[in-house]
Amino acid sequence: MSKLVIVGTVAFDAIETPFGKTDKILGGAATFIGLAASQFKVDSSIVSIVGGDFPQEYLDLLSDRNIDITGVEIVKDGKTFFWSGLYHNDMNSRDTLVTELNVLADFEPVVPEAYRDAEIVMLGNLHPLTQLSVIEQMTTKPKAIILDTMNFWMDNALEDLHKVMKHIDVITINDEEARQLTGEYSLVVAARKIHEMGPQYVVIKKGEHGALLFHKDNAFYAPALPLEEVFDPTGAGDTFAGGFAGYLARTGDTSFENMKNAVIYGSTLASFCVEKFGTQRMETLKADEVRKRLQQFKNLTQFEIKLT
Amino acid sequence: MSKLVIVGTVAFDAIETPFGKTDKILGGAATFIGLAASQFKVDSSIVSIVGGDFPQEYLDLLSDRNIDITGVEIVKDGKTFFWSGLYHNDMNSRDTLVTELNVLADFEPVVPEAYRDAEIVMLGNLHPLTQLSVIEQMTTKPKAIILDTMNFWMDNALEDLHKVMKHIDVITINDEEARQLTGEYSLVVAARKIHEMGPQYVVIKKGEHGALLFHKDNAFYAPALPLEEVFDPTGAGDTFAGGFAGYLARTGDTSFENMKNAVIYGSTLASFCVEKFGTQRMETLKADEVRKRLQQFKNLTQFEIKLT
Repeated sequence: MSKLVIVGTVAFDAIETPFGKTDKILGGAATFIGLAASQFKVDSSIVSIVGGDFPQEYLDLLSDRNIDITGVEIVKDGKTFFWSGLYHNDMNSRDTLVTELNVLADFEPVVPEAYRDAEIVMLGNLHPLTQLSVIEQMTTKPKAIILDTMNFWMDNALEDLHKVMKHIDVITINDEEARQLTGEYSLVVAARKIHEMGPQYVVIKKGEHGALLFHKDNAFYAPALPLEEVFDPTGAGDTFAGGFAGYLARTGDTSFENMKNAVIYGSTLASFCVEKFGTQRMETLKADEVRKRLQQFKNLTQFEIKLT
Repeated sequence: MSKLVIVGTVAFDAIETPFGKTDKILGGAATFIGLAASQFKVDSSIVSIVGGDFPQEYLDLLSDRNIDITGVEIVKDGKTFFWSGLYHNDMNSRDTLVTELNVLADFEPVVPEAYRDAEIVMLGNLHPLTQLSVIEQMTTKPKAIILDTMNFWMDNALEDLHKVMKHIDVITINDEEARQLTGEYSLVVAARKIHEMGPQYVVIKKGEHGALLFHKDNAFYAPALPLEEVFDPTGAGDTFAGGFAGYLARTGDTSFENMKNAVIYGSTLASFCVEKFGTQRMETLKADEVRKRLQQFKNLTQFEIKLT
């Protein structure tokens, strides 16, 4: 079993969907990543920042799941990062209503001493230079550094993004972002160009259409489980990344073959995340529910043609 | 091996894509279905109509592939159905430039005597009552009647569409059409509602995002092969349907398990179709090219997680 460092936001979210709306609830990329990875009972540590307004019960919720939170800085007189969003009827598009950076504006991540030799590093969506500073704190070369990013940094910090991309092994990015980053419509060609920017493994997330993993000339596809109802998509991408990173940490195997399984686990966990608001579903998720859904993924994708 | 009846257009297409444009070339749903099904060396018969302007070499191209064309009516003084379309940069949207029904306006399909006991019937996109008249000509109950349709008939002949849907086993439909037909966004819920309209098997085509097969509470997903370049999408859906129907005819097995394989074959053949203009790629396609690409589909989708 490998150690896992998770860097990203721990935050308040307020969400409105066609099914209802929430007040400020627990959110943030690192939160979703951590909860997903905790399914694998790995030693993980969240590196983040919150304000004095952040409830102790939310911190307890993380540490109760064996997530080390000594790397979560608490700024007593500061306010926690807050995001609010409104989803439209198709659940595939959303408007951001509020983004209050608050303490995140001055976030300088410090990886706890005990995790500077972690084998797996998961860099949640943040400024590329913040992500880079985490890589620089690692005392031994990780087996896999995984980076999530978004179009905002392509628009506003492209050069820095290219800088950090040179140091990573896996990038997770959505299809539109992959196209924006490369100027290529074909995801096969886009993935090849992203390889050339640094990462040997490219994971392209397509939301309800699943995810593609590219490595050299190989591709692997994990569908999203067809669901009766998507209740709240918030955190699905981070849950995917957390499942992916957690499975790699659990197995300590960063081969392409094993990453296929990591992608399947990521999709499986994400399919739970969207069933309730925010982190609710992930908080109660049990191992044998995951096992059953993995079996559904097998039924959904596995076939037996005799290739003659 | 079962016999296969294919009903649909045999036509002229003129296509423009970002890569180039064609004059009038061979097209039509039944043409693409027939070419795809011919990969399985089944006994198939196309039921269609063309004008006196339709070149003998196109007819020969079909009969050279062991496709019976005695059911293709030739109206000496009529003109062949003509469609012209323009694809946009993303290849997922297109404008129809010209639709000339010509002889198709008076098409009354007649299934050749020798095929009225065919086990598999593939009804290409046509007026629902035209599709229904073919079903009524069958003297023994087919193992599987497969129907393709489109939003045009939902807008203009919905009642007739519901009438023919009561008699079919499998419907192939794209995701937007499934949503339109049922008023449901979730494809899981949409498929269930379509089941209730008649067909026990629902295939939802998602273009570059693959295809889903639903049967009762079971779902199966076949991705589209990620391609470097889509040259011309014309006929991809019909090629998918032809691969699906051809495989069922070849194996004579219409179980859900075998339909999974049929969906994979459909996707495999469609991945070739888009590589060149119109029918060009399907005309030269060799069995061992298909075999190799099936292996790519296995690599793309198969994984081995030990479910403990």
